[in-house]
Amino acid sequence: MPNKAFQDFYAEDVSHCYGCGRLNEHGHQLKSCWDGEETVARFTPKPYHTAIPGYVYGGLIASLIDCHGTGTAAAAATRARGKDMESGLLRFVTASLKVDYLRPTPLGPELELRGTVAELKERKVVVHITLYAEGQACAKGEVVAVLMPEGMGKG
Amino acid sequence: MPNKAFQDFYAEDVSHCYGCGRLNEHGHQLKSCWDGEETVARFTPKPYHTAIPGYVYGGLIASLIDCHGTGTAAAAATRARGKDMESGLLRFVTASLKVDYLRPTPLGPELELRGTVAELKERKVVVHITLYAEGQACAKGEVVAVLMPEGMGKG
Repeated sequence: MPNKAFQDFYAEDVSHCYGCGRLNEHGHQLKSCWDGEETVARFTPKPYHTAIPGYVYGGLIASLIDCHGTGTAAAAATRARGKDMESGLLRFVTASLKVDYLRPTPLGPELELRGTVAELKERKVVVHITLYAEGQACAKGEVVAVLMPEGMGKG
Repeated sequence: MPNKAFQDFYAEDVSHCYGCGRLNEHGHQLKSCWDGEETVARFTPKPYHTAIPGYVYGGLIASLIDCHGTGTAAAAATRARGKDMESGLLRFVTASLKVDYLRPTPLGPELELRGTVAELKERKVVVHITLYAEGQACAKGEVVAVLMPEGMGKG
């Protein structure tokens, strides 16, 4: 049985993100997990997630990088505090996002996102992410994630 | 009768973008137009475009900035060549995208994106964009757009 993803450990009241919330039935429900010291997520775009026909639109790529980044930040910060994800995952939000589109991303194959933690502070984590299609790097991203302000998720 | 938007002038074979293509029935169909020397687009997110409940997810904000950026680049470059959009709009694609999330963007109100051309070369246009909700700047973005490579849209 596969391991649970980071996003499966978010508290219920912060699990509605369109990009990665397990409780958002309309959204992408991205799932991220550890793979050694890297993190990995996989996602297959829908046929209508098109830019120029044949390629994935940049907004989806940005969204996947964003959510894999905040998920990676949450997992890394939780681990750095010596805590287990089972006892609750911290929630990080995005302060800034940078995406370099290296080449057009083909629409059809499963995409793989691989993340590494570039900087880890108590309330700020920087994550570098590469998005691959068919083994070829198509986009690189940097996510600056910050610990969610108190009360933000309490509606 | 309102003016046609930039995206209404894209050739049919490059009008399927999920973010702004008029022929993508699943997508956002963002519409951008001139407002003096700035460009403007407006978009009301759906209730499920959520991040933390009550706020717009960052991937949508990135997507709107991306498409308003490439649309602005196309319109500015077409105008700089002394051409009319009616005779066909150039098509730009995103080389890089940077978004700074200044504050959580409330989910509900219409969002307004305002763009300015920061740099204009024959094959590269840099656009700065601010996204507002209820008159308050919630995100700032920079889009580096490049002229679409020959043949990319010919599928």
